[in-house]
Amino acid sequence: MNKSIILHVLGWIMCFEAAFMALSFIVALIYGENGSGLAFLITIGICLLLGIPLVIKKPKNKVFFAKEGFVSVALGWVVLSLLGTLPFYISGQIPGFIDALFETISGFTTTGSSILSDVEALDYSMLFWRSFTHWIGGMGVLVFILAILPLARGESMHIMRAESTGPSVEKLVPRMRTSASLLYGIYIGLTILQILLLLAGRMPLFDAITLSFGSAGTGGFAIKNSNLTSYTTYQQIVIGLFMFLFGVNFNFYYLILLRRVKDAFKIEEVRWYAVIVAVSVILIALNTGGFKGFLGSLHQSAFQVTSIITTTGYAMVDFNHWPSFSKEVLVLLMFIGACAGSTGGGMKVSRIITLFKAVGREMSHLVHKRSVKVLKLNGKKIEKETLHSIIIFFITYMIIFAVSFLIISLDNFDVTTNFTATLATLSNIGPGLESVGPMGNFEGFSVLSKLVMMFNMLAGRLEIFPLLLLFSPSTWKQ
Amino acid sequence: MNKSIILHVLGWIMCFEAAFMALSFIVALIYGENGSGLAFLITIGICLLLGIPLVIKKPKNKVFFAKEGFVSVALGWVVLSLLGTLPFYISGQIPGFIDALFETISGFTTTGSSILSDVEALDYSMLFWRSFTHWIGGMGVLVFILAILPLARGESMHIMRAESTGPSVEKLVPRMRTSASLLYGIYIGLTILQILLLLAGRMPLFDAITLSFGSAGTGGFAIKNSNLTSYTTYQQIVIGLFMFLFGVNFNFYYLILLRRVKDAFKIEEVRWYAVIVAVSVILIALNTGGFKGFLGSLHQSAFQVTSIITTTGYAMVDFNHWPSFSKEVLVLLMFIGACAGSTGGGMKVSRIITLFKAVGREMSHLVHKRSVKVLKLNGKKIEKETLHSIIIFFITYMIIFAVSFLIISLDNFDVTTNFTATLATLSNIGPGLESVGPMGNFEGFSVLSKLVMMFNMLAGRLEIFPLLLLFSPSTWKQ
Repeated sequence: MNKSIILHVLGWIMCFEAAFMALSFIVALIYGENGSGLAFLITIGICLLLGIPLVIKKPKNKVFFAKEGFVSVALGWVVLSLLGTLPFYISGQIPGFIDALFETISGFTTTGSSILSDVEALDYSMLFWRSFTHWIGGMGVLVFILAILPLARGESMHIMRAESTGPSVEKLVPRMRTSASLLYGIYIGLTILQILLLLAGRMPLFDAITLSFGSAGTGGFAIKNSNLTSYTTYQQIVIGLFMFLFGVNFNFYYLILLRRVKDAFKIEEVRWYAVIVAVSVILIALNTGGFKGFLGSLHQSAFQVTSIITTTGYAMVDFNHWPSFSKEVLVLLMFIGACAGSTGGGMKVSRIITLFKAVGREMSHLVHKRSVKVLKLNGKKIEKETLHSIIIFFITYMIIFAVSFLIISLDNFDVTTNFTATLATLSNIGPGLESVGPMGNFEGFSVLSKLVMMFNMLAGRLEIFPLLLLFSPSTWKQ
Repeated sequence: MNKSIILHVLGWIMCFEAAFMALSFIVALIYGENGSGLAFLITIGICLLLGIPLVIKKPKNKVFFAKEGFVSVALGWVVLSLLGTLPFYISGQIPGFIDALFETISGFTTTGSSILSDVEALDYSMLFWRSFTHWIGGMGVLVFILAILPLARGESMHIMRAESTGPSVEKLVPRMRTSASLLYGIYIGLTILQILLLLAGRMPLFDAITLSFGSAGTGGFAIKNSNLTSYTTYQQIVIGLFMFLFGVNFNFYYLILLRRVKDAFKIEEVRWYAVIVAVSVILIALNTGGFKGFLGSLHQSAFQVTSIITTTGYAMVDFNHWPSFSKEVLVLLMFIGACAGSTGGGMKVSRIITLFKAVGREMSHLVHKRSVKVLKLNGKKIEKETLHSIIIFFITYMIIFAVSFLIISLDNFDVTTNFTATLATLSNIGPGLESVGPMGNFEGFSVLSKLVMMFNMLAGRLEIFPLLLLFSPSTWKQ
């Protein structure tokens, strides 16, 4: 493995993190939060001290293959999280290091599971950094770097592949760098639009910015102890709408920008995503409100379904009190997740569709031995390799799920709490059910469980394999 | 599709069911249970009235392919269950038809989930029939017919393939009929041995026979309201041991009979099965008893682990009160199930091993693009087709699980009850957790939920595809 080039990439990540943190430092200045400001300043210093030498030292060997891509991304996210933890820890705003690390990983991976029982006790600059990690993690810090730095072709491709979500990277344009810039352009544009619409609805600026970061990255950290229950209906609708939009495959917006609107609406994954959302909203509205209360419960149902399938995790109601059927619809949505190529987590709609299609083909194959159906997605043939990798992803997801579920249970919470805590972290949702429900938090778990859940969050965001490879001895062999 | 030959096979099933029921009729005579005796007599009459004409009418067309095999087996099991329900229903021992059908399907599929809150209220002949259905279903009624009737080669093969458990049928000997006879020979031999050992431990004859039927088929219907808690330690150990033995791949016993003991112990699936059992027993004993109470809780742990992984479902303790970790180990064992080619349910150990191997290969493939590892099980290469069918099985299992889980939740039991009720029926276990725990029952569910669970039990026993094909329109096209 080419270690020098990986270190070079890590150096860039540290420098960019320092730049991101500078924004939070400014927020600390504005609100006069000296302790937090100092913590940011110290961390920025550490980032630059470590990062600049690595950036300056040019790697001799330019070889960069898939393995280097996986390792850069996985290590990059670990470094990003460790350094991102320091402000919380140094300032004492989150006293325990494990808790601070949990919160930071939960932020960058856009999970939104929190160990804080009193969010409002945090300084504004810390709340800002916490939500900003969602925004950075949503589209990916390395994709951001790609958009800005002129990297080599192989580097860009393998990094993009390892950090983006979904079974295969669909390049918007042949040049990776342009693709990355386009993605971030759309991302920034939508985020600003959401902030403006929230401001128009008289939401305070700070809330508008942080909540928009949380929706854009599909993260879901709330900045109030009451989560999103206290906002106005208009504000909730805007946030719900934008959560939905950020769960859409970004190819959709690219096609819209090219004015190929028809093609955009032909993307099969986006259609299925809309169908799943619509059906779930109706089912839950009927289940929670009955035929008479259907319209009344539609707002809550729509908000929560969108929040969960996009893996954001904001709550405008404590769905812990919903009937079992509605809760279980949410649990299934947690497995499914948003579209590939969006900022959302979970297994992704396109993977689920493909699995269903594969089962359908098998059924017809059983009856008609000689039938050879070609599997298609978005009108294109699904390559054998892609299908294979989707299937392996599914199985690995389930294995990690089972093992985590077991380890977490050592804390002796109830089975549903263990099940949904595992799912909420592995699918980057945020809240689960029972003790980890929308009004609960993850504080009560042991250090072992928290470590497992941090692994899950990273595995979920990086779609498992980059992270798993870090633990495989053969990765490190010369 | 060749309907005439399928009807012919169904005719044979009815006649054989009449013969099986004759035994229960004798039990009714012995205990002087006139009402139940009459119910058996009437049902025997119906079986013969419907069956004999179908048997006599020889099918003109002898064509018999995989499709005919699947449909014969799936329809055969439906017919078997419907007719097997009649004694319970006619005698009024189980008043509701849906409940009686549930109990019968649970019997034949060797699930052991019961809708009875008071088992001891049943007549002896009914308890006998209920446990006997386990024994018939364990090895399969069609395999029994194969062992006795001289069927055509194609017929035997496709029927055997559809009714046996596991990813691929390993023939003991080239001739299917001899294979079937051998399997039933081993099955009968082991059952008799268990009965004798239980009698030696002073268990009443009736209990020894019915409980042995339940262990042999890995069914798990108890004949006492206290399940198996009131039996002596010796009796529980014998039952535990035999549950373990009936969960082993029957190829193992065949090799033992041939005195190829070394080869027998080389079967990879059997080794893993033993390892999983041993590890689970130790973990649960530690978790329930601690280091000090380890030895004391070993007996309970060993019995319950064996009972659950073999998908029998007998209980000598109410594991609902165990800590979460132990309960979750049981839940994972419910997914895994016993060995292929045993009478047990679940996904089967060999499928799980294969899935793990496939993931391992993928990992090394990611690092070394050019590595081409051959997947092996029991020293033999796993064919691409077999791997593919295992994967599709896994995915379909999960899809059926998810849909059932959702429908059952409409009854608004808690999430854990819904989850384990789905699992307990789909994996043919019997009990689950919470309301459907070992001291609970399935009476409280709605008719819809019961129908779903009946489907699950049949799907689980027939390993999904034969049953699913019944619902596929293309199966019925000319």
